[in-house]
Amino acid sequence: MSDPAKKPLRLGIAGLGTVGIGTVQMIQRHSAMIAARAGRPVVITAVSARDRGKNRDADLSGFAWENDPVDLAKREDVDVFVEVMGGHDGPAKAATEAALAAGKDVVTANKALLAHHGHALALAAEAAGRVIRFEAAVAGGIPVIKALTEGLAGNQIRRVMGVMNGTCNYILTRMQSAGLPYDVVFEEARQLGYLEADPNLDVGGIDAGHKLSLLAAIAFGTQVSFDAVELEGIGAISIDDIRHAADMGFRIKLLGVAQMTGRGLEQRMTPCLVPADHPLGQLQGGTNMVVVEGDAVGQIVLRGAGAGAGPTASAVMGDVIDIARGFRLPVFGQPAASLATPVAAQSAAPAPWYMRMVLVDKPGALAKIATCLGEAGVSIDRMRQYGHQDDHAPVLIVTHKATRQDIAHAMGLFAGTGVVVGDPVAIRIEEV
Amino acid sequence: MSDPAKKPLRLGIAGLGTVGIGTVQMIQRHSAMIAARAGRPVVITAVSARDRGKNRDADLSGFAWENDPVDLAKREDVDVFVEVMGGHDGPAKAATEAALAAGKDVVTANKALLAHHGHALALAAEAAGRVIRFEAAVAGGIPVIKALTEGLAGNQIRRVMGVMNGTCNYILTRMQSAGLPYDVVFEEARQLGYLEADPNLDVGGIDAGHKLSLLAAIAFGTQVSFDAVELEGIGAISIDDIRHAADMGFRIKLLGVAQMTGRGLEQRMTPCLVPADHPLGQLQGGTNMVVVEGDAVGQIVLRGAGAGAGPTASAVMGDVIDIARGFRLPVFGQPAASLATPVAAQSAAPAPWYMRMVLVDKPGALAKIATCLGEAGVSIDRMRQYGHQDDHAPVLIVTHKATRQDIAHAMGLFAGTGVVVGDPVAIRIEEV
Repeated sequence: MSDPAKKPLRLGIAGLGTVGIGTVQMIQRHSAMIAARAGRPVVITAVSARDRGKNRDADLSGFAWENDPVDLAKREDVDVFVEVMGGHDGPAKAATEAALAAGKDVVTANKALLAHHGHALALAAEAAGRVIRFEAAVAGGIPVIKALTEGLAGNQIRRVMGVMNGTCNYILTRMQSAGLPYDVVFEEARQLGYLEADPNLDVGGIDAGHKLSLLAAIAFGTQVSFDAVELEGIGAISIDDIRHAADMGFRIKLLGVAQMTGRGLEQRMTPCLVPADHPLGQLQGGTNMVVVEGDAVGQIVLRGAGAGAGPTASAVMGDVIDIARGFRLPVFGQPAASLATPVAAQSAAPAPWYMRMVLVDKPGALAKIATCLGEAGVSIDRMRQYGHQDDHAPVLIVTHKATRQDIAHAMGLFAGTGVVVGDPVAIRIEEV
Repeated sequence: MSDPAKKPLRLGIAGLGTVGIGTVQMIQRHSAMIAARAGRPVVITAVSARDRGKNRDADLSGFAWENDPVDLAKREDVDVFVEVMGGHDGPAKAATEAALAAGKDVVTANKALLAHHGHALALAAEAAGRVIRFEAAVAGGIPVIKALTEGLAGNQIRRVMGVMNGTCNYILTRMQSAGLPYDVVFEEARQLGYLEADPNLDVGGIDAGHKLSLLAAIAFGTQVSFDAVELEGIGAISIDDIRHAADMGFRIKLLGVAQMTGRGLEQRMTPCLVPADHPLGQLQGGTNMVVVEGDAVGQIVLRGAGAGAGPTASAVMGDVIDIARGFRLPVFGQPAASLATPVAAQSAAPAPWYMRMVLVDKPGALAKIATCLGEAGVSIDRMRQYGHQDDHAPVLIVTHKATRQDIAHAMGLFAGTGVVVGDPVAIRIEEV
């Protein structure tokens, strides 16, 4: 296991942005330590990026340069193709396919690529006898892919949950702490450079949904199925709901949940209420958290930085060192051919719901709402009515477990009562 | 990677207590799932325990029986010796040595064995070309050995911290929530069966110290050095200190800390104050938490059940599946021969301290205390004096960073002032 004569593992790094340069720096800083742990030296032989002339925060003079990542992927002096370019089609996909075809292992940070093409790439990798590792694609520096695929592999997984987009969590916790509305905090986040070029990737839940689909594939032994993820962003979350939820002991999070139910595989990335005293509720700012529930292990919580040069490079290097050590396993933890085609659950499991509405100040208004809920089969756990404002009375309701359909049914009935002002709000409460 | 013709991996399980039976049940319940993930079947061929006649919660009829675990370890039909007996000498050690000598891999939950004999066993394992895996020995179901040895292997580790004895955390959090003194809650814990036969293993910090010494070896590339762990139990923690600490925004935890300093390797398992709003401060009841700080990844927090049949069996099975998959690495993450002999730091890094004392109600009493602190080179960050009771005034002080020696010096000076009633208390505040 410690043969000093072992050949160096040679990396070709495609993409020299934050993560690529972070990886170069880590290898340069810790080459002796990495060699001791990996059992052999890890070296970079070649790199590629769009702009060779750009000033970068690392000495690249010892590495060969390729303008085209596909050429990098095919180089004879590369054992592992490290893809940290991003993009779910185009060069990243072409270069990854080229690397596998040329007999290279692949380490990638590209959640979008795997969410869209993960199954085909896994089949290609396994046909070629190669591995694709993607710790850096999910929750940054948190070693959650490893925990789920390896450490917890003896468990039947019951549920995987996660707050996996730091920008959304920053926005929601900042709204609460500063008492600012969504639009203002969104603009702050943009100024701070926290948002993707297409902000909908963040606040629309798409980026976090990509990550959830990868965790679900491993957890439940199913083919990646990003298209089946129910996506709802945070754009409609109001400061009122954040405050009222807090009053009732909850926090609002963009929460990913994947679970296998009798009705099929449920994958959701939507705003949810979680208890303020659970680690998910306590999570502040841009930090990420993944919660894994196994039948034997119970609930495991993993927390750490979800983005940034250091954390993401840490995840890349964990995968690289695994490959250097000779660890080899199927891309999603079991052979791709054995992964089931998931049946998407057509409706989410029943849950308690938080509802907020404003009622006109008339006798019997509340009774009408209660009647609608009863007709829809939704029973009330807690209700709170606030002091009247301008003849309008804000009302909060926490229901017992109900389906989304029943809640939608009740909200449809509300409209006919003539006592509801504006649009009522309903947000799922995830029981953790 | 998915050859259906691959031979089963054959386990011999020594010890049929909670963990052993939990492991048997897990394999029986999930044999198909485990085979899919491991790439080959995992089967139990033989077991051993002290009392064959005992009624156990699993069907053992398909397994060969050995009365002596050493005989089990040597069986030709065993590939992996699973040691879940416990005890740092005697049969567990003899059987583990026999297993390695007979060419078997070893999976163990035995922190005491590895804390005392880890380096010798690692040398023996590597000389025999075998692995010893011990995820179950540290923090139950939390895959922290894997995270540290593999997932975070690209990082220079700055510090490892952990609350790793659930019984101690139960006692401390129950004292706070119920307002009960240590002795009463200790007795409750005993009634609930939370304490080891020798309770000092729990409340004296020994069990948690064993775990810390294993994490330190991996984190810093040093030989296991349990004897160098500074150990202090929770028996002297009073409800007063828990309350006063809470008033000032802290919680008291039995906290393990390992870090490599300019003065050598520091390993402590002692009561510490931590901020109430850090995940360590928020940790309630018997749950465990490990915090790993790496130079690239930042702070990673792992939380989960630290004991019990399911969580511990989950950790055992993670190791078994790794072996079935062909993952092989040195016991402490790099070759045992390359592990440095640690120089133990003779003193802990400076830290802020919490001090509590009761002063007689005389003019100038507080000034005398302040003078003593000044003479000892300890400066005051915050001070709080409570209302007088019976001519005695409780005083709380939070110091700026100071060494334990300086704090001890100041406390020695207090004695000469004639204004301190009873013994003053000083507890380190760990900055997290």
